[in-house]
Amino acid sequence: MASTKTQPARGMRDFLPEDVRKREYVIGVIKEVYERYGFEPLETPAVENIETLLGKYGEEGNQLIFKILKRGVHESTGEADLALRYDLTVPLARVVAEYRDKLPKFFKRYQIQPVWRADRPARGRFREFYQCDLDVIDSYSMLVEAELCAATSDALLELGFNDFIIRLNHREALRDLLTSVGIPDEAQSSTLIVLDKMDKIGEEGVRLELSKTGISATQIEDVLDATYADRLAATLVAQRNGSFDLAEYNAEMMRRLRMRLIQEGGFNKGLSDLEKILSFTDATSAAGRVKLDNSLARGLSYYTGAIMEISVEGLAGSLGGGGRYDKLIGMFLGKEVPACGFSLGLERILVVMTEREMFPTTLALNPVDVMVSIWDRTEISARESLALATELRQGGLRVDLYPVRNVKVATQIAYASKRGIPFVVLIGEQERANGEVAIRDLRTRRQHTLKRESLLSTLRQSL
Amino acid sequence: MASTKTQPARGMRDFLPEDVRKREYVIGVIKEVYERYGFEPLETPAVENIETLLGKYGEEGNQLIFKILKRGVHESTGEADLALRYDLTVPLARVVAEYRDKLPKFFKRYQIQPVWRADRPARGRFREFYQCDLDVIDSYSMLVEAELCAATSDALLELGFNDFIIRLNHREALRDLLTSVGIPDEAQSSTLIVLDKMDKIGEEGVRLELSKTGISATQIEDVLDATYADRLAATLVAQRNGSFDLAEYNAEMMRRLRMRLIQEGGFNKGLSDLEKILSFTDATSAAGRVKLDNSLARGLSYYTGAIMEISVEGLAGSLGGGGRYDKLIGMFLGKEVPACGFSLGLERILVVMTEREMFPTTLALNPVDVMVSIWDRTEISARESLALATELRQGGLRVDLYPVRNVKVATQIAYASKRGIPFVVLIGEQERANGEVAIRDLRTRRQHTLKRESLLSTLRQSL
Repeated sequence: MASTKTQPARGMRDFLPEDVRKREYVIGVIKEVYERYGFEPLETPAVENIETLLGKYGEEGNQLIFKILKRGVHESTGEADLALRYDLTVPLARVVAEYRDKLPKFFKRYQIQPVWRADRPARGRFREFYQCDLDVIDSYSMLVEAELCAATSDALLELGFNDFIIRLNHREALRDLLTSVGIPDEAQSSTLIVLDKMDKIGEEGVRLELSKTGISATQIEDVLDATYADRLAATLVAQRNGSFDLAEYNAEMMRRLRMRLIQEGGFNKGLSDLEKILSFTDATSAAGRVKLDNSLARGLSYYTGAIMEISVEGLAGSLGGGGRYDKLIGMFLGKEVPACGFSLGLERILVVMTEREMFPTTLALNPVDVMVSIWDRTEISARESLALATELRQGGLRVDLYPVRNVKVATQIAYASKRGIPFVVLIGEQERANGEVAIRDLRTRRQHTLKRESLLSTLRQSL
Repeated sequence: MASTKTQPARGMRDFLPEDVRKREYVIGVIKEVYERYGFEPLETPAVENIETLLGKYGEEGNQLIFKILKRGVHESTGEADLALRYDLTVPLARVVAEYRDKLPKFFKRYQIQPVWRADRPARGRFREFYQCDLDVIDSYSMLVEAELCAATSDALLELGFNDFIIRLNHREALRDLLTSVGIPDEAQSSTLIVLDKMDKIGEEGVRLELSKTGISATQIEDVLDATYADRLAATLVAQRNGSFDLAEYNAEMMRRLRMRLIQEGGFNKGLSDLEKILSFTDATSAAGRVKLDNSLARGLSYYTGAIMEISVEGLAGSLGGGGRYDKLIGMFLGKEVPACGFSLGLERILVVMTEREMFPTTLALNPVDVMVSIWDRTEISARESLALATELRQGGLRVDLYPVRNVKVATQIAYASKRGIPFVVLIGEQERANGEVAIRDLRTRRQHTLKRESLLSTLRQSL
């Protein structure tokens, strides 16, 4: 008998019962909120044809996709034809293209499933993790961005979060900003990736990395001026009266962006979108939570318009994010269908909720109401206990049956006690002969005998 | 803009909202029953280290495992280091070995997750499918087999099934039976695999395939005599009084098995186990459902004792199955820990429930209570509708907001009507000025105006 490695695969996790209960609680809350917003559930396979995924996430994404070997005689080629789902957005785009006629025009779907990325594992970063996505298909209106911010806000509020901020930016505005300081088109993507790292590597780190992308020292300073410096200035304006006024900050940011991007009488699509989102979210549960952040870039390459990310105090990284991707469905369908989505990250939410002890105390309660013991090794005793357990279960109780026959009753009681089960039922020969059972309350250690037919109601009252 | 293949990968499926609701309903019922039996939830990763899976399922199983390519610089080697979960039992065995000290001694877990097998897709057979497993660890007692049969029976009964039978056999008894007719040890596995196909290929098919396994014509007839012929004889005995008497059938089968396997005063472990299971299940929800079937073999190689399979009229294949696997955990832990489990197959259950129209009618109801329309393209109109939707959602209603601004109200109403949404709320300039809203009942096509603050309660009453 050889023993094998028993840990889960690198970056993956087993969830023991207590973990599962916490996860299910959070998922349940999020689902309920998403449904209140009129979203409907979708599920897609864990495995996709590899060409569905490749080329959708940028070069880094391609590297992190788990690829599945061809099977049978083709296995030896070492080629992959399938891959594990990398996010829930690309499968949605495929689904919309495939079932266009069966789905409502404005398909509003939520999807809560795991995704897999061969990332380097770190605190709160796993290779299998759940995303809680919601998306709206076929509208260009910023009403959609507002609804998505509102729904995710409500989900977090319902879970007990009250210090989160939705950072808001716009891919077009961001590119226009880079163009305005002279960064050529071909250098913009790499610049964005570096800018997005400010929280992780700091301003000096950003300077250093930007210098490696080939843009000039003057351009670097101009970029930093147009992003971090403007943000800092707007923060100072918004703090004039001692505390931070988010509306004032957003107004000042918008004023500065307009100055940089709009000639007199001109129009900028990105800024116009941002203005609408700010105005619309103000009428929803996201009011007071949306903050313009002109250096937010988001990693995925498919975004085309507004981009959002939720941050919360004390957590590096985000609780979730999303944005508009008007071109992605077209990659499958051959014609453009606008879309916008938002994804909450279940694992991060769980990390913060655990640290802050935000779970309801009822989750920790014992999952079993009563244990039926086995009096002795006779067959009649086993059958009697089985029949009683059956009755109690039919009465709706959660009943454990001690699963071994030839064990002292004291040992069985000790087992139930260790597991935190409140009651143990005993049926000795005497009781059986009299149509009675004994019930032992493990909290008070009191035991009494009662008629078998009144056991269910007695237990129900005591629980 | 190139269009790509948009179907899901071969043998895999997308679940649109209506499908998801059906799946969630069935899973919810099964979970609730499993919890009543004192089982607790476990979840394991979709991906396992490949050595965890290889060598656990027999040669055919090894072939059907989806293998994942090494990543980064190792990708070009064409080697696999990970694989997709093939069942829920082997991961459980790994978990028990890994967390032995954290788990209750008699760990009773349920697990409802997908597994992946590179099988040839067919009706009701997919490459990604859900299993609903429950297992009890660390007891050799047949109480466990009885509890598992009872829990799966209760789950099926709760779903509305009433014509299922649990076929019961025992790996040891089966091997003893083959030995008794002279089949040598090394030919037994291949014989079992053929015997298991009776339902698919018929008696002549079995004869033909057995002849290819190298056993003699006499042995073939002896095997068929000891299995099918005995079953047929017992059936005839049990039908003496016109209808089929399951208890009588089992008694006759047991009598015949005893004659074949037990010398006077002797003992046969397999038969003793089967007798206990029959006696014990009789005291549970599985009463009248367990049927001895001495040709049932089950494919997986890890079973060591009792084996069970649930069949239902009109379905080739089974709704679920299970058995005892006392040696599997030892392959991870290095010391034997007995275990027994049962798995319901979600996909088969759904196939039969769909054919028989067993779903509650409430599942088909519209998932949205009311749609808030957008009166005109002004920002104030959009904000007003957003604010109203927010209020109604906070009141617990499931609210859709029409997601485009510049659309005729009639078009919006037609959209809601097509989706089966019962109510549409309208806020024209007049209504807004008066603090009122109009509500249109799409079933009666009546529309009336009311004070905005009484909208929520009015809608609640009408729904």
